This record gives sequence, C-alpha cells and structure tokens, in this order.
Amino acid sequence: MMANSVSVGILGATGYTGVELLRLMHDHPSVRVACMTSERYAGQPIAAVFPHLAGRQLPVLCRIEDCDPGAVDVLFGCLPHGTTQDVVRELPRGPKVVDLSADFRLRDPAQYERTYGQPHRAIERQRDAVYGLTELARAEIGKADLVANPGCYPTAAQLPLRPLLEARVIARDPIIIDAKSGVTGAGRTAKEASLHSEVSEGLHAYGVGTHRHAPEIEQGLSDSAGAPVAVTFTPHLVPMNRGILATIYVRLAEGATAADLQSALERRYEGEPFVRVLPFRSLPATRHVRGTNLCLIAVHPDRVPGRAILLSVTDNLVKGASGQALQNMNVMLGLPETAGLGQAPLFP
Amino acid sequence: MMANSVSVGILGATGYTGVELLRLMHDHPSVRVACMTSERYAGQPIAAVFPHLAGRQLPVLCRIEDCDPGAVDVLFGCLPHGTTQDVVRELPRGPKVVDLSADFRLRDPAQYERTYGQPHRAIERQRDAVYGLTELARAEIGKADLVANPGCYPTAAQLPLRPLLEARVIARDPIIIDAKSGVTGAGRTAKEASLHSEVSEGLHAYGVGTHRHAPEIEQGLSDSAGAPVAVTFTPHLVPMNRGILATIYVRLAEGATAADLQSALERRYEGEPFVRVLPFRSLPATRHVRGTNLCLIAVHPDRVPGRAILLSVTDNLVKGASGQALQNMNVMLGLPETAGLGQAPLFP
Amino acid sequence: MMANSVSVGILGATGYTGVELLRLMHDHPSVRVACMTSERYAGQPIAAVFPHLAGRQLPVLCRIEDCDPGAVDVLFGCLPHGTTQDVVRELPRGPKVVDLSADFRLRDPAQYERTYGQPHRAIERQRDAVYGLTELARAEIGKADLVANPGCYPTAAQLPLRPLLEARVIARDPIIIDAKSGVTGAGRTAKEASLHSEVSEGLHAYGVGTHRHAPEIEQGLSDSAGAPVAVTFTPHLVPMNRGILATIYVRLAEGATAADLQSALERRYEGEPFVRVLPFRSLPATRHVRGTNLCLIAVHPDRVPGRAILLSVTDNLVKGASGQALQNMNVMLGLPETAGLGQAPLFP
Amino acid sequence: MMANSVSVGILGATGYTGVELLRLMHDHPSVRVACMTSERYAGQPIAAVFPHLAGRQLPVLCRIEDCDPGAVDVLFGCLPHGTTQDVVRELPRGPKVVDLSADFRLRDPAQYERTYGQPHRAIERQRDAVYGLTELARAEIGKADLVANPGCYPTAAQLPLRPLLEARVIARDPIIIDAKSGVTGAGRTAKEASLHSEVSEGLHAYGVGTHRHAPEIEQGLSDSAGAPVAVTFTPHLVPMNRGILATIYVRLAEGATAADLQSALERRYEGEPFVRVLPFRSLPATRHVRGTNLCLIAVHPDRVPGRAILLSVTDNLVKGASGQALQNMNVMLGLPETAGLGQAPLFP
Repeated sequence: MMANSVSVGILGATGYTGVELLRLMHDHPSVRVACMTSERYAGQPIAAVFPHLAGRQLPVLCRIEDCDPGAVDVLFGCLPHGTTQDVVRELPRGPKVVDLSADFRLRDPAQYERTYGQPHRAIERQRDAVYGLTELARAEIGKADLVANPGCYPTAAQLPLRPLLEARVIARDPIIIDAKSGVTGAGRTAKEASLHSEVSEGLHAYGVGTHRHAPEIEQGLSDSAGAPVAVTFTPHLVPMNRGILATIYVRLAEGATAADLQSALERRYEGEPFVRVLPFRSLPATRHVRGTNLCLIAVHPDRVPGRAILLSVTDNLVKGASGQALQNMNVMLGLPETAGLGQAPLFP
Repeated sequence: MMANSVSVGILGATGYTGVELLRLMHDHPSVRVACMTSERYAGQPIAAVFPHLAGRQLPVLCRIEDCDPGAVDVLFGCLPHGTTQDVVRELPRGPKVVDLSADFRLRDPAQYERTYGQPHRAIERQRDAVYGLTELARAEIGKADLVANPGCYPTAAQLPLRPLLEARVIARDPIIIDAKSGVTGAGRTAKEASLHSEVSEGLHAYGVGTHRHAPEIEQGLSDSAGAPVAVTFTPHLVPMNRGILATIYVRLAEGATAADLQSALERRYEGEPFVRVLPFRSLPATRHVRGTNLCLIAVHPDRVPGRAILLSVTDNLVKGASGQALQNMNVMLGLPETAGLGQAPLFP
Repeated sequence: MMANSVSVGILGATGYTGVELLRLMHDHPSVRVACMTSERYAGQPIAAVFPHLAGRQLPVLCRIEDCDPGAVDVLFGCLPHGTTQDVVRELPRGPKVVDLSADFRLRDPAQYERTYGQPHRAIERQRDAVYGLTELARAEIGKADLVANPGCYPTAAQLPLRPLLEARVIARDPIIIDAKSGVTGAGRTAKEASLHSEVSEGLHAYGVGTHRHAPEIEQGLSDSAGAPVAVTFTPHLVPMNRGILATIYVRLAEGATAADLQSALERRYEGEPFVRVLPFRSLPATRHVRGTNLCLIAVHPDRVPGRAILLSVTDNLVKGASGQALQNMNVMLGLPETAGLGQAPLFP
Repeated sequence: MMANSVSVGILGATGYTGVELLRLMHDHPSVRVACMTSERYAGQPIAAVFPHLAGRQLPVLCRIEDCDPGAVDVLFGCLPHGTTQDVVRELPRGPKVVDLSADFRLRDPAQYERTYGQPHRAIERQRDAVYGLTELARAEIGKADLVANPGCYPTAAQLPLRPLLEARVIARDPIIIDAKSGVTGAGRTAKEASLHSEVSEGLHAYGVGTHRHAPEIEQGLSDSAGAPVAVTFTPHLVPMNRGILATIYVRLAEGATAADLQSALERRYEGEPFVRVLPFRSLPATRHVRGTNLCLIAVHPDRVPGRAILLSVTDNLVKGASGQALQNMNVMLGLPETAGLGQAPLFP
C-alpha cells in the first residue's frame, strides 16, 4: 500500500462514528482524509470539536456542498438516518460510498417505509447497495459501489446466527435476541436521556418490540435460512460508553446439539481475522474488544434441553460501525482487509 | 409502634446486605440493633469499616458466639451461603430468624445438595422455613419462625411471573429470563473480578445455564403453575452498583393476549405498597427504584405474535435483599409492613 | 409539627435541585407541595418527567404565572441564574423565599454585575436577602423573608474556612481551594459536555481563575476575616453524579498549629447536626455523605511546615443545594432544623 | 527496525503495567516478548488471566527463576515496590533494565529508607540507575543500563514544573500539587478499597501529606532548581480507570508573568512528540490522552495576582508507567523514540 494513496471524504465527521473513523484511519497506512463535513462546525478545525485530535494533519471542517466528491476515492456517510439518501442520490458515480446510516440497509422499499416512516428517496441507488456484513458478503462488497454498513445490533446478532441458520442446526423460531449497548450507540446529540446524570448507575430496556434494527436483522436471517424469520429483539442501555453484548436464545434443530453449533461457527469463521469463536461455554466480555474490530462469539448449551444460548460481543463503534466501514472500504478497494484495524484492546 | 421496642441482631453486619439493613433500620421507628457480628472486625466499631455510619448509635461488632440470641427478638442472617445453617441449627427457639443466604430457600434437600454441592446440615429447620417472597406468602410469613429471604434474581423474576402462571395466561414453556445486575450483587469480597478496573466500562454474562438461582426460581414458578416449570436463566454483570433488571420472554397461553397479562398483574398487585404494575408498554429503569423496596413491572406485547415481554426492576440490595428482609420482619412481628421502607428513590 | 401544615411552591421543579427538593420533602413531616412550575412541561404530571416520582401525591406542573404565591408559605426558587430576580421582584410580600440561584448571593451590586455580566434588576430585594449558610447565619435566617441559598462550591469551601479565619488560626493569604464536583452540578440542561460519553472515564478542570463562585466565597471569607480575602479557586468535573470534595491549602497563622485548626473547628461545630469535624487526619469521601445534608471536614498538617490541608465533602445536591434550602426553610419557620433531612447515606 | 529484533522479558506481566506493556508492544515493530513472569499464574497462558490477549503470540507465563536474563536484550520490571531490587541485584550485566517500581528512583539511600521503610538492598545498582523522565534525561538514558521509570504522579508533576524552575520563572515555594488519579493506579491487587462498589460514584483524597511520590517529585524539582524544593502534594482517587490530572499552584518569580511560563514551556518542549504545551488557558482532559503516551500541559494565570495554575494530564498507565518505559527502552537501544507509541486516543 502506498502512503496516502487513498483519498477519502467523511460526511458528518463530528458525530461518534465520524470521529471513530478518524481514530482508525490514523493507523491506516494508505488513507488520506481529503474532506470532512459538519454543518454545525463548518470552517473550524476538528480539534475545536474534539481536542484529542489536535496534532493530526486533517482538513478544516466544511459544509457538504463544499466537499468535492470527484476529488475522493471513497465517501463515508456518517449522517443521521434519512438524510444520506438525498446526498447519495445527487452524487456523481465516481467515488465509492460506505454509508453508516440505515438508509440503504433494507432492500424492500415497503419495509423501509414501514420502518422509517417515510418513502425512500433514492430507490435506484438502494437497488445497487450491498449490505456490508463483511465476513458474510465479501465477494459482493468487493464489487460494490455503495455499501450499506450494518447497524451495531444487527452486526452482533447476525454474525453468530446466520451461519447457524445456513447450517440448519437451529430452528427458525423462536429466536430471541436480548441485546445490551453502551451509550455511544445513542450518538452525540445533546439530549437529556443521554446525560451522565441520567445514564450512569442505572439500566433500562427501550424500543421493546419496536426497534428499527429488528427488520434489518430479519432480512439477513431470512436470507440465510432461505425462509422468513421473525425475531424477538430487545435492546437495553448500559452505563458504559462502548460495547454491545447480544445474548441470543435459540432452539436446536431436530437432532442437533450445542456442540454442532460450536463446530458450525468454528468452520464458518476459520481464519477470519475479526470474528473469533471462543472455546465452548466461554464468557466473552465487551471490555475484551474495546477499541477493536473484533466480534467474539460463544456457544452455551441451555439448562433446558433442546435449547442453546449464544453470546456475541463487539465494540459498537468499531465492528458495529466505523471499523466495519473501514473493513468494507479495504475490501472494496482490494486493500489488505485488516489495514487500519490492528488495534489491541484497551483494557482496562 | 413503640420506639426501640424490637431488638434485632445482625449476623454478618459488614457485608453489603448487613450494612444495607443498617441503612434501612435507621428509618424504622421501632427497631433497636442489639448485636452485630463480624468475624473479621470483631471488637471494632462499625464506623471503622463503614465511615458513613459514624454518628449512629450502634453496638460494637462482635463474634457470633458473643451475640446472645436470647436477647434479641429477630436475627438477620447475612452470612455467606452454606454457613448460616450451622448457626441456625444451634439456635434456641426464641428469636425469629430472617436468613438472607440461600441456605433455607430450597425445600427439596436433594435439590439443595445438587445446587450447592453439599448435603444440608439443618434439615429440620429447613422444613419449617417459609420462602419469604412477601407479597406472595404474606400469611405464612406472618406465622413463620424462620424466613428464607429470596435471592435478588428470584425476586425480580418471580414477582412478574408467578401471578401469570397462576392466572394461566402464559405458557409454562418456554420461559426465558435474561437478567442484569449491578456489582453489589457480588458482595464485598475482595476479588479481582469485582475491581473497578475490571468491571467499569464493560459487560458480560456469567453462570450461563448454571446459576444457582435457577432452581430457586423454578421452585416458585412450579408452585404457581401447579406443575413443573423449567426456565432458561442468564445473569449479566452491569457496571453499576445497585439494580436488577429482568427481561423475561414468555409465550401467551392459548387465547390470551398481552393485555390479559397486564390485567392479571394489576389485579394481583392492587394495593401493594412495593410492587407497582406500570402502564402497558412502560420502560422501567433501575435508577427509578434506587435505594427503595420497590419492584416495578411492565408488560409488552412482542413483535412476534403469541409472545410477550415482561420487564421487572428492583434495587438488588433492597427488595432483592435487605429491604425484603425487613419487610418480612415487619410481617412476622405484626408491624406495619412499610415501616422502615418509605425511602424515596435517590435519583440522580 | 402538624402534617401538611406548611404549604410550599417550587419554581423550576424539573431541574435537579427541584426534584431533589421533592425527594427530601417526601421525608418532611409538615410540608405540602402546593405548586410546582415548569415552563417546558406545564400541564404534565411530574412523573412524566421523572418516572421515579410516580406514586407521589403532587400537583400537576404549571407555568410560573399560574402559581399563586399568596397560597403558599414558602417559595423555593430553582430557576436558572438571572431569572429569579425578575420573579422575586414582582412577588407580593407574603411568602418567604429561599432562592437556590445565584441571584441574591452577592451583596455588592457592582460585584454582581461584574460577575454575572448584567446589572441586578431587583436591588431592593437583594438588600433584604440573607446569605443562607445555615450554621453561620442561623439567627439572621430565622428572621429573613428572602434567603439566598449558597452555591455548592461556596458551601463546601466556607464551612471549613470561615471558623478558622474568625479564630485567626490561618493566614488570609494564600488560600487555595481545589474543588471537585459530580456532574449534577452542571444541571439537567441537555448539552454535549454533560453527555455520559463525554464525561465518564475522564476528568478536567474548568473555569480556572474565572468561576463565578470565587467572589461568593470571598464575600463570606472576608466577612469572617474582617478584611478582604482573595482566593485561588479551581473547580473540576468528576465522573460521578453527586458529591463535592474541596481540598483547601492554607498557611497557619503565626504560632498556630494544625491541631489548633482542628480544635477551632470542633468548637465551632459542636452539636451541629449536619457539620461533622472528623478526627484529625481523617479522609472523608463524598460517597459517605451521598443523599444526606452532611458536611464532613478533616484537618491535615501539611508535610511542608507552616501549612495545613483541609478536606471538606458534601453532596452537592443536598447540603450544596436543596438540603440546605430545606434546612433554611426550617429555620425561617421555626421548625426543627433537621426535619426532612434525616436520610442515611446511600452506600454503596 | 528489523521485525522481532529486540528480545524482551517482563517480570510481573499480570499486573496492569505488565499487561499495558503487552498492549503497547503489539504496535512496536521490532519487539519480541521472550519471557513473561507471574508467580501466581506460572505455567498458564496469559489469555487465562487476560482473555483480551487471546490470539497474541506470547510465551507461557513462568516463574522469575525460569526467565533467562541472558536471553533477552531488555528486562522490564513490573514487580511490586521493594522486590525488584533483589532481582536486579542478582542479574548478570547483560540485559538492560527498565524498572517500573519505585526501587531505583530515589538517589539518596537514606531518603529511600525513610520513604519506603527499609534499607535499600542493591545500593550499587542504584548508583548506576538513571531516572527515566525521558524528555528531561534523554542523553543519560541513552547510555544507561538501568533506568528507574518515574512514578505516575511524579511524571505528571515534573514535566510542567521542572522547565519552569530551570528557567527561574516560578518561585521555589510554595508549590502545591493537587493530583487526581484513576483507579488502575492502585494496581490489580484484590482489595476492598478498589472494588467497583467502593470506588464508583465517589471521590476522596488519600496519603495526604505522606504519599511516597512527594520525595520523588522533590528530588527532580530540586535538581532543576539547583536548590532544595519542598512540595505540598495531595493525591485523590477518581472513579475512572485511566488518567491523571495534576493541578499545580505556583507563585511567579519576581517580574515573571504567566505568559513567561507559557513560553518557557513551549521552548522546552518544542518538537517533543509526547509532551504538548496547549494554547494559553486551555483545559486539558484526561480523556483526551486515554491510551496514549501524551502529556498535555496548560498554563493559566490565577485570579490572584502573582500566581499561576498549571494543568497537566497523562494516561497513568502509559506516560505514567508502561508507555514511558517503552519510550525509555527505545532511547536506550537507539530505536526511534516513538516506536510502539503511536496510538490515537480512545475517545469516547
């Protein structure tokens, strides 16, 4: 890889996924950030917003209209849901796009409209979009112009579940995903519910039965099962900044054992740099992947016969967002897939 | 109630459940602490261990053998699991006992031995013991000499589930309890796994498929169902000090709706001072019960037809331990049940 | 005290000081909340904003103009700095007022204008206002119609320093106050700097050399010294919700020893229910006063001869705000000073 | 640098400084870990102790006597204070040593004995030891066989103070260092005082007037001042894992201004990769250096004329311990000083 040979733009650089991209790109041998947008802070250096970035050679923040897409090889969309599609629709066909919003994740426009409450405004681009769960769609991503980067919960849920559905070792129903996330998942928007005083020393579920990531998960699981899958999905907000843990309750397929799940996963992810299937009955912790693009998966037999429990942990800002986005960029450009993603976990 | 009219002893006063009893008793109009034991700190004032108790009129810590059970009306056992039974076995029949350990919770000695890895050494007393989930066993508790105070997870799980099984509005299987607890649940023992540096900014499951609270939960649920119930139960450690959230996944009984669950719970807990059934689809948070004896319960229809989700929150040290113990004492002695338990939540 | 015999209004009930007043009043035997205002949530029950208050008998939130001051005995001002003075100016002379904002704390209008950047708009009322550091101004507070409740930092700083200046055992210069506060001190305003993701796992100083509490502290210290005192004052934001710790560096007066400081403080606060002078060289912790109206003070000789170090901790929302406000109300009305303020610390 | 060309041993690899060395070495292009000791876990893979290290190519943990010093180029001592000297005394003169304990930091044996309560047992080696505050002793470190790596507080305190004393722009007295540290500074020892339940949501000072880092700081300051310096030093424990903030109160030298301090520091640290003098009156935060070897320094004029306030932040495990140790190794071996130390801050 030649130094600075890949020129990238970041739309929405002052949210947590944007600034996390900047952290990771610091370690990428060939990326040069050519353009970073922020409507609110346009004209200011990024260090005015994030002092920890002082000392980095980065362009001044600008408005979206001042970012020339023709001048970059890859555009990362870190904009709020529902706004990226307008930007992407107007883009020339030059730069490749990795969109971290939900705008291009759902293939079915009707499902999109039901889930996000508005018709999609860039249907044509949506048709081209490849769903970027890297380990499970590497070939398509390699040919894609537009990658829809998966949501944080869908990443943590699909990585363990999809190989098991493909291998037919678990039943399609029930699949119950009890997921827990750190606070950065709520973004950097200033709202009471995300204040330290409101979040720390407490825990609650939210979006019970209604969270928008459920249809996204079901789309992927149904693909793998070759038949419709419906999931129970409950997210929870945990008083920590980074990390997702999905605890997943499944029924074994007729004749299958928990050990079969273990071996199916081990086979599927053998040699993968970022997905690690831990020894049977391990207890992965989010703190063991902090700051990394790893997903750790463990299989447990349930105490109730015929069932099993899957545990899956990621850093929601890395494998759950910006890390996977960079991984996807690497695949799209034919770069080494681990470039910029070799960080060791920060523990404690 | 006459001031100081009830004399109590606390065996094991320097763990978190012991010191929480002291906090609550500060607000109890008729309790006088006559004796507090600590093998490690015997001879010292409690403020040497817990400086925040300085200024309270409390006896010096002593060894168990120096605590005269004949001199107290009620003994609270806050000792480690497996040690209380030896103490209780030797007790004269005078004082009433509320045991916060697991020693007397399981009625079946064989189940006890399987779960705790040793035969029970006080079988006779175990036969008398009443399982002290106050709202569901008030009459028996009122007549009991020995109350086995429920575990923290079993309290949070059984309060929502048992009325639903009794009302036959949910199926007996599957019942999946995904529970999350603050760190005080691990006690005050100095161990690496409970260090701030190991716990904060992270999350993990533990005891998957093997936690000792599962048989305790099943005993209660089976009683209510009138038939054996087996549960899936997964506890998680959350980086906060107090609080338990149980997210419970159930299947509706034939013909039942989530609204039926709501009304069954509302009927069952109408007028209860500590168990509150929130409006349908509410999102209870552990921080809303911090420092109180409350259990908040909410019912949600699942997005998958035929299923529902129950949410239940408590403060693990209060309703999950010392608060329920004090509530049980009040019932045993015929005192107002809310005495000493009127604290408002500490939020933030 | 007769139940419900004192009728109070709370202006600005949905900030942290307002809701903390409600927590404390829950334990007050004679207070009835007649009126609670919130411009933003007018018309809603308080439980819509703070679910943990569900179950309390409290009036619906209303606008300030809908709160009849003639119908209450005491008004608590929990409004932002700079807005209370307009409300107080228009008040009839009936109800007593405890103002938790900074509006009436500085006696000198020129100092007020310099510090808060605008001329005072209720000069007459300011003249009547009594600075409500209860232990040091009990007699005046007892006769006051308007009490300016001290700031959180000024409370933690003045309680140890003023008796020492009065006793002439420390020098007037230098006095260096290094103060650390939990996040609730920043209020409930939704701003990025108070988000969990921005505050947790980190620490910083702010307002270095410019914080508005410095003139307030100097006013009090100068009163006690009988001569102008200037202080160095640096506040810090600590990743916890409640608590203030002031570490104060002083020079001993000619001939004085650290032991003299200890005895001066012990004499001054003998018998005080809320201010405790700990044994020489103690290490008070904010967690030991969590949820209480206590101020713990400790004296340490410095390793450098001729100097001493004072430590002072409070709960910033209680003795640093709402607790002291309630204490002041008790004094103003001739009620027992500890009414509503008997909470035991919540630890852990 | 050739890959794996430097062979290192880590004595005491399972404490926080040991495991942090392993994190940093992951990014070092030429280090190969040949030997890691742990008395407690000898014979086990490091991932048994720290699961987040699974997947790394690292040797099995062994006892100290099984680590052949002749086979390594550099030995890092991460043992408890007082034990390294026995190991170092017996070492052959082959490998270079970077000792992270306090054993070789104090040049004066009498001072060592007063501070650590025992006579030094490796006086000869102590004479050779170079105090490894890298930026201020680069040349000596380059020639050293044994580097005494500075303590975390001494690093944060000396980096801002020593250039100012050298430049004679501040007075030698008073110098007041109010320092705040995260919990990892207390190490990984299982003790009640470091439990999450005891540390979180609270704050306290400790070692007031007696902390062992004060003589270490004074040794360095006296060197720079060319005359004895005595400091006031108060450490505090903050509920976060990583980070130190030192707030330092100084008196300006006759005729000097705060701007002179700013320029003296800027001159001294110009071009330094790890020490950054921020713009005048900046507010550095520990979270801005999390996971990095940076020290950020800011200068503030005090509101009291003639004084100034210095702020200094580091990550206590990196620049305050293992990062500086690796930096020192780089200097000792003539490697690029920043090798293995290029991590971007992890924020949030």
